[in-house]
Amino acid sequence: MKMSGEDKLIERIRRRIPSATDGVLRLGIGDDAAVLRPVAGTEWAITCDQFIEGVHFLVDVHSPEVVGYKALARATSDLAAMGAIPRFFLMSLMLPASRSGRWLDGMLAGMSSAAEHFGLTLIGGDTAQSPGVGAHSSRFGKVADGKIAINLTVLGELETGKAVGRSGARRGDIVFVTGELGAAQLGLELILRGIHRQRRWKPLLTAHNHPHPAIKLGRWLVRQRLVSAMMDISDGLSTDLARLCRASHVGARINEQRLPVVSVPDGLQAKGIDAKALALHGGDDYGLLFTVPRRKAASIPSELFGTEVSQIGEIVSGNRVQLISANGKATPLLPKGWDHFS
Amino acid sequence: MKMSGEDKLIERIRRRIPSATDGVLRLGIGDDAAVLRPVAGTEWAITCDQFIEGVHFLVDVHSPEVVGYKALARATSDLAAMGAIPRFFLMSLMLPASRSGRWLDGMLAGMSSAAEHFGLTLIGGDTAQSPGVGAHSSRFGKVADGKIAINLTVLGELETGKAVGRSGARRGDIVFVTGELGAAQLGLELILRGIHRQRRWKPLLTAHNHPHPAIKLGRWLVRQRLVSAMMDISDGLSTDLARLCRASHVGARINEQRLPVVSVPDGLQAKGIDAKALALHGGDDYGLLFTVPRRKAASIPSELFGTEVSQIGEIVSGNRVQLISANGKATPLLPKGWDHFS
Repeated sequence: MKMSGEDKLIERIRRRIPSATDGVLRLGIGDDAAVLRPVAGTEWAITCDQFIEGVHFLVDVHSPEVVGYKALARATSDLAAMGAIPRFFLMSLMLPASRSGRWLDGMLAGMSSAAEHFGLTLIGGDTAQSPGVGAHSSRFGKVADGKIAINLTVLGELETGKAVGRSGARRGDIVFVTGELGAAQLGLELILRGIHRQRRWKPLLTAHNHPHPAIKLGRWLVRQRLVSAMMDISDGLSTDLARLCRASHVGARINEQRLPVVSVPDGLQAKGIDAKALALHGGDDYGLLFTVPRRKAASIPSELFGTEVSQIGEIVSGNRVQLISANGKATPLLPKGWDHFS
Repeated sequence: MKMSGEDKLIERIRRRIPSATDGVLRLGIGDDAAVLRPVAGTEWAITCDQFIEGVHFLVDVHSPEVVGYKALARATSDLAAMGAIPRFFLMSLMLPASRSGRWLDGMLAGMSSAAEHFGLTLIGGDTAQSPGVGAHSSRFGKVADGKIAINLTVLGELETGKAVGRSGARRGDIVFVTGELGAAQLGLELILRGIHRQRRWKPLLTAHNHPHPAIKLGRWLVRQRLVSAMMDISDGLSTDLARLCRASHVGARINEQRLPVVSVPDGLQAKGIDAKALALHGGDDYGLLFTVPRRKAASIPSELFGTEVSQIGEIVSGNRVQLISANGKATPLLPKGWDHFS
């Protein structure tokens, strides 16, 4: 029986990202919808995330493997921030015809590796030609060929009532972050300056290309019932902290000298790359930002699962977010991270 | 506290498509992920669907209200085909800056109306600028402004074990379809010929612009335990029947004179619009295609919830799908419906 081009593409995706049904997944990829049978005593965390050529990645800079890996890592980070165990994902793929061969194979390889690493099973999706520059046929006749867009919906499982949102931070809570701040943005700055192919800087691209969602760390924090609010840092500390404070109707005071700032080699500082600005406003780090009631703060180790955990300030009443310098001077910390609609 | 442009956009979406938490939805839009607490004895059907400018709709032909309505109706149709009750949805929106004002308001109004009609609550999403023609700033500097893409993930609830997939059709089963075949494609043909603005043809655009997912019908069929396989017809009968047969490892014989063919006015037949071709290969109808064991076929009424239900043929062994003409002649029914990667 003849298969349509779209069905052949879906078959290729199925082969490259295996999906086996189990006690929870009753019906997987290839039907009108997947069917999930929840386990008693569990809840589901669900979120979606786009990864778009020209907005989130560049095809002449990022390998297809990096694109596939990073698309899934970003989405999974949102599950980590809820304390959920990553379980399933769906992929909507908008693809120009020119990318449906080797590029797609590479992207699927990167995504498959991420899926295995994070414990995710592909359960469904949708494919469509991308409109833009070039030409292909659609139901409306010839339309231009276009950009790649990957949209991922991820589902995680967690114990009933254990999920931690953004709105629970209270006055007096201590503010923590995990990992180094600004490391991913440092990689992006190299790309923006066109020096990312220089051998001496290549190791600095790792955080930008291969972020690690804090899955174990998020699980540990939630299971210990230590945190009052939690989110991942995807658009930069200044922007994401403002979101947490707004959701919780509080302000915050952040101690500048406590920030786990990425170290920037002298040769790059000379090019105008400022470590403090990277740490405050740089995106794509995917560490966790969380708050802990003061009496429990001592229960948070300074390192967990090999990742640094840093106390960076405290929650205050009001709605102002301030940065406190080493000499005690307070300045407003304005959200200057990534903003897709500035 | 200053809100970023993206956060303001998300606030606008929240206001226009209300989302209230309940016993199942523990945490809704605005956090890293939504949290769902399943009800004992239920399963979840989940699927995603893209609706892309230039591929699935045209901004100079389809009003923003139609775009918002139809995007959600298409996705919901996949839940109807599983026999699920539509409950929640997430929206990823790729939007050029030029469409983030009045166009977006209109689109959200159409989507909100569809959500209310189908019983769906918005629980999350993602927004990004669209790359393409024109210019806006991204993390990579100025990039071109582009197309609109709406990706929707929908979740439906159903009784444990009741979901019906595509793979259960068996030799001897009777093949049914609901509604008229080709009505939506007729509207598209008017658009392709540039005559859709002529007053006399306007009523023929309704099926194309405002499809009705067969939610009640799908629920009824599943609860009565009458169907062996079911799917919705989104890409045309010939293409979707081939999918059902491939998933079930069977063939089918379809009686041409039994097809509920859309009626095409003489004035349009004269323009070369062929009703039979529309019925066999036209997409976007969103009726149900299902199979029923022969002994139960008499239990299927010829009309359900105001929609025509038609016996159109039978399942046979092998893998051939054939069309039987009034005089008994059999010809192969090749999948000639929509194919995004032909």
